[in-house]
Amino acid sequence: MKDIDFWFEFASTYSYLAAMRAQGLAADCGVRLTWRPFLLGAIFKKDLGYADSPFNRHDKKGDYMWRDMDRQVRIHGLPSVKKPEPFPQNGLTAARIAMVLEEDDRLPIFVRSVFRAQFQYGETISEPDVLFDILSQNGFDAPDVMQRAKSDKIKQALKTQTEHADRIGIFGAPSFVTPKGELFWGDDRMETAFRWQD
Amino acid sequence: MKDIDFWFEFASTYSYLAAMRAQGLAADCGVRLTWRPFLLGAIFKKDLGYADSPFNRHDKKGDYMWRDMDRQVRIHGLPSVKKPEPFPQNGLTAARIAMVLEEDDRLPIFVRSVFRAQFQYGETISEPDVLFDILSQNGFDAPDVMQRAKSDKIKQALKTQTEHADRIGIFGAPSFVTPKGELFWGDDRMETAFRWQD
Repeated sequence: MKDIDFWFEFASTYSYLAAMRAQGLAADCGVRLTWRPFLLGAIFKKDLGYADSPFNRHDKKGDYMWRDMDRQVRIHGLPSVKKPEPFPQNGLTAARIAMVLEEDDRLPIFVRSVFRAQFQYGETISEPDVLFDILSQNGFDAPDVMQRAKSDKIKQALKTQTEHADRIGIFGAPSFVTPKGELFWGDDRMETAFRWQD
Repeated sequence: MKDIDFWFEFASTYSYLAAMRAQGLAADCGVRLTWRPFLLGAIFKKDLGYADSPFNRHDKKGDYMWRDMDRQVRIHGLPSVKKPEPFPQNGLTAARIAMVLEEDDRLPIFVRSVFRAQFQYGETISEPDVLFDILSQNGFDAPDVMQRAKSDKIKQALKTQTEHADRIGIFGAPSFVTPKGELFWGDDRMETAFRWQD
């Protein structure tokens, strides 16, 4: 059994693609995944001095990305993509909730539900109600989880996790990291990462 | 037989990867390739206001790219990568020569030789002597080609070609475009592009 850290950002379209396929592919490859949310915006801001998505800063790249997403979901048998407004969404609360659920086996279920809400239904994932409903519908104790997500402990844990991502060289999402620190960036590298031998 | 335009920039590492594999894969996929050099730097400057490579502007992304290249050449059975100094190289003269050879069946041989000189041997491809030698060693009439590459006609042809790339939405290299205008960006999308049905 190999261990891989799967680093994702809730606002990221290619993190969505990876999240939908990660568990099945990990099973095929004998990989045990650790799902690690982080705030890519904080890293963009620190490294590059800007806060917006590169897909918004470069029109042609943004147009291309949405077209590429249309093709990729078709290739992977996923429903057609709905662009949420605004894009990128603010994934802070969702990421804090994911930190609350860090030790919970059902974390991937929550993560995929948030991604689906955002990119299949175009919902606004910064809305506490949207997140509350996702938790409830998946059998979590929504009031308790939402409450814990507001604690200083969780806020700090997400900050520490994002700083950790930065320190190990992560600059985009999704990223995949082996125990020896081999870093792979992008949904297109997920399978290479899962099959990596070192 | 499908037609695909293969847009490449001589300074681009992932264009190198694509150039080394393009002809074999095209044969497998029943694709007729048109090799189209362009100046990505001009597009970066126009779209984003900067002239340097994104891999130099973002240290972590640059470090990652060179590590990824090490892995990708191993996966594709290519020799280990040598980083040219400076990076990115100035590919203007090489691109003008490629425009001279536009109608020549041996254009891919010239292109691959320039990429090899740069990324396998770390040579400086802006040096006319390096390009002259590549032409000679591959049986081209080097003095004649070098002379024609300096003509106003060729300078304008490369400029027009780069403007064309910009107009059809190209923002990175390599890119692949179908006759109906379907655009694919990146070495990772080459096979998807070659197998695209529209």
